[in-house]
Amino acid sequence: IKNTWKSVGELAVKSWQFGLQDPRQFIFAAKMALALVLISMLIFLKGPFFENLSKYSLWGILTVVVVFEFSVGATLSKGFNRGLGTLSAGGLALGMAELSKFCGAWEELYIVISIFIVGFIGTFLKLYPTMKPYEYGFRVFLLTYCFIIVSGYRTGEFVNTAVTRCILIALGAGVCLGVNMCIYPIWAGEDLHNLVAKNFSSVATSLEGCVNGYLQCVEYERIPSQILTYQASDDPVYSGYRSAVESTSQEEALVGFAIWEPPHGPYKMFNYPWRDYVKVSGALRHCAFMVMALHGCLLAEIQAPPERRQVFHSELQRVGVEGAKVLRELGMKVKKLERLSPGDLLFEVHEAAEELQKKIDRRSYLLVNANSWEIGSRSVVVDNPEDLLNMKEMNETKSLRTKSRSEAVLDLRSVPLMSRSWERKTAPKPPANKNPSLPAAAPSAAPSAVKYAKQISWDSHIEVNVETVHAEVSKTYESASYLSLATFASLLIEFVARLQNLVDSFENLSEIAKFKEPIIEMPVQ
Amino acid sequence: IKNTWKSVGELAVKSWQFGLQDPRQFIFAAKMALALVLISMLIFLKGPFFENLSKYSLWGILTVVVVFEFSVGATLSKGFNRGLGTLSAGGLALGMAELSKFCGAWEELYIVISIFIVGFIGTFLKLYPTMKPYEYGFRVFLLTYCFIIVSGYRTGEFVNTAVTRCILIALGAGVCLGVNMCIYPIWAGEDLHNLVAKNFSSVATSLEGCVNGYLQCVEYERIPSQILTYQASDDPVYSGYRSAVESTSQEEALVGFAIWEPPHGPYKMFNYPWRDYVKVSGALRHCAFMVMALHGCLLAEIQAPPERRQVFHSELQRVGVEGAKVLRELGMKVKKLERLSPGDLLFEVHEAAEELQKKIDRRSYLLVNANSWEIGSRSVVVDNPEDLLNMKEMNETKSLRTKSRSEAVLDLRSVPLMSRSWERKTAPKPPANKNPSLPAAAPSAAPSAVKYAKQISWDSHIEVNVETVHAEVSKTYESASYLSLATFASLLIEFVARLQNLVDSFENLSEIAKFKEPIIEMPVQ
Repeated sequence: IKNTWKSVGELAVKSWQFGLQDPRQFIFAAKMALALVLISMLIFLKGPFFENLSKYSLWGILTVVVVFEFSVGATLSKGFNRGLGTLSAGGLALGMAELSKFCGAWEELYIVISIFIVGFIGTFLKLYPTMKPYEYGFRVFLLTYCFIIVSGYRTGEFVNTAVTRCILIALGAGVCLGVNMCIYPIWAGEDLHNLVAKNFSSVATSLEGCVNGYLQCVEYERIPSQILTYQASDDPVYSGYRSAVESTSQEEALVGFAIWEPPHGPYKMFNYPWRDYVKVSGALRHCAFMVMALHGCLLAEIQAPPERRQVFHSELQRVGVEGAKVLRELGMKVKKLERLSPGDLLFEVHEAAEELQKKIDRRSYLLVNANSWEIGSRSVVVDNPEDLLNMKEMNETKSLRTKSRSEAVLDLRSVPLMSRSWERKTAPKPPANKNPSLPAAAPSAAPSAVKYAKQISWDSHIEVNVETVHAEVSKTYESASYLSLATFASLLIEFVARLQNLVDSFENLSEIAKFKEPIIEMPVQ
Repeated sequence: IKNTWKSVGELAVKSWQFGLQDPRQFIFAAKMALALVLISMLIFLKGPFFENLSKYSLWGILTVVVVFEFSVGATLSKGFNRGLGTLSAGGLALGMAELSKFCGAWEELYIVISIFIVGFIGTFLKLYPTMKPYEYGFRVFLLTYCFIIVSGYRTGEFVNTAVTRCILIALGAGVCLGVNMCIYPIWAGEDLHNLVAKNFSSVATSLEGCVNGYLQCVEYERIPSQILTYQASDDPVYSGYRSAVESTSQEEALVGFAIWEPPHGPYKMFNYPWRDYVKVSGALRHCAFMVMALHGCLLAEIQAPPERRQVFHSELQRVGVEGAKVLRELGMKVKKLERLSPGDLLFEVHEAAEELQKKIDRRSYLLVNANSWEIGSRSVVVDNPEDLLNMKEMNETKSLRTKSRSEAVLDLRSVPLMSRSWERKTAPKPPANKNPSLPAAAPSAAPSAVKYAKQISWDSHIEVNVETVHAEVSKTYESASYLSLATFASLLIEFVARLQNLVDSFENLSEIAKFKEPIIEMPVQ
């Protein structure tokens, strides 16, 4: 017993803390209690006129318990269902009861058969997908029908039962609506609005997390099994996009309620376009899937070597930062119900993506493994560890000298077609330990390299296949790891491309929902 | 009125056709109707002993209407909720009623305050996330408490009200369970099992659709706005993975019911591991996200040129086919509750992926745009349209001759380091219209090319930036389009990598759920 009390106490503390996160929960609970008290007060009414009301007060209580929901929209939709179900079932039951008078001795059989038929049809229609929102209405319909038929048979007072019931249900529904709408109303539409705005910032956080994680070469030592089985997890990058992707069903539910709500607060408009909020959120999800794929690159077993990532560091970083900025900006606009400011919101991010693309373009040799090209094994590219060192150095110091030096190294391989001597001129000293890569000098170095490459090729074709398959596998692995960087970059670019669609759907929403013009802030003097 | 009748008729026809898709719906409706009839028959019981039962039959009807659910698990869980809510509320109400006797004149106030407090606490706890499955129980608790207190106050018969109510609720619940479990039971567990198995085949279909679409260069002239906003659409590729991704909430609901169900049918085990089915489905979802990313490549604006895709045609195709085969095989195993057959299920698909990787490795020059490499502009690679033609031809005819010819063309650019003369020897005639690409001959051709490339570089640096930025953009676009192919391939390989995780979680499930050993089929003589 002590343990039970203890756990009850813990639950109380926890739920209290949970309530503090969203104080509307306290308000809702108090409102519900108030509605129950109001409807229960019926029993204190004395006098012959109120006799019946007091006697059948159960119906009022039942209505309040069932209809009172968290948001105004949900309460309205349930109240409507209940009303419709009760009225139609009442009408049908009264009609059937009239008929039953002609049955005489067969009355019992008649009642049983009518209940079976109504029960069958009512239950069957309930399952039909388009009837889903009215599921509760069908339940009420069945209950009312059976109740009126049954109690009418017992007492012979069909009409009286039906009327009292209707009055009490109307009373209960009235109390619900009054309390729910007049005292601190909680709107489903507002929740939907906030949810959509929140999704923007969670995707933005995820995107930043992905790009930064990738550049810092974060590796999951062991990928949490929650991620592998797509369960909830507290990994910040993962939970960001997951919450945006998983909010579909919540949004659907909220929209179902929001469309019932009258114009209120900032949503002063009949037929407020709630569905378009869901569409914007869907467009955001379309972007979030790319973030998800980016995160997939972080999770992948085959990872690009850190030094190659560093080459594209600033460009990747910039696209990530700009992309997140656009998402945050849009989220803020949604939140504030403002139109976009004049000027191209996507300009910066597009420019960043183009920079990245150009850099890739110039350095795409870093993304592939030239080792085993059929057109000629350019094995020097990767086999020479100094190259990578140079590349890294080049990126870190960015001095012209190292740049030209590393190019000198790389020049070895494509000498006859290139000559960037104009750049080389600016470099103070060509490194002495390398072949000075002048076109004239190259051929002399080439033939021996050719022979070497040829031999290796032969070897790998004959022996490697038989004995050391592992070497081949690790080579394959290596080139896959380079491609992984290309994938990351190209997914990032695709993400940027999808932003356009997001902006379009936002603009569509801001048009239909008549968002206000942004206030252009004057700098404070 | 005519129109109303017409639309009612249409609805009837449609729902009938809908019912035929899953005949369990007819059975469910009939069962529900039967349960209602059974509980309504209480009123035919005559005699003093049954007087109360007949009078309060409403409670039985209410219970049946509310508790009777589609699946056994849902009915059990609702019945449990109702029972628990009623009993605890009944106990509490009786206790409070005893106390109210000491209040004297303050009884009304006492009742009002107690209802408020109970209403507040009950509603507040209901909102706590871990209490979600018991939401219905809390409702019943509130209803019962208010009803007993209120009707007790009116009649003074607290105990009698409570007891009659409990008997009728028990009776209603008994009828529900009896009808639901004894006559053609519908199990939530079975639904979950089928849903998971179905997800496998939808993802497989999507995967095949993606790969085939990509190879056939299917382009969306206008991407359906449903896809862009992640709404339901009937695009087969899209709806396949979407249904697998979107089934999360359905699975959660089914699992919530399935764990209530007793061992039955093929699931002969207490604590059957339904949660592990959801995990397998989650692992499948983890793969489906890659299919989603692959589909993203089809949707992207920037597309790889068809002839380059053809180069990797057979490898991509094979990975797609093998991947889909693995998914279908696993889905079939889940369906049949069988363990994996001995042997490595993933062998084929891994081999196919490795083939693809090797091919990429050998041909990665096709995935990048060597035009604007900083290490030297190898402009010839793409500028010469004949190259692409050759590549295509090479892939189609696979004759040694064209192969060597196309290589001869490509040789031009990396001559000094390569010499595949052993292959060239097998080719009957080296093409005469091309420079015979012998190492010795190359240098003579090179210098002029170098000059040309250099000039272009200068031009683009000085003039293009000022006047024709478009040219640059289209170049960037071009190289992005090559990378897109690399992305597709590397996403496909990542998909294959994720299959391992899927197989692991399947094996885990088959272990815990004690799947049967596969029957090794003997070939029929």
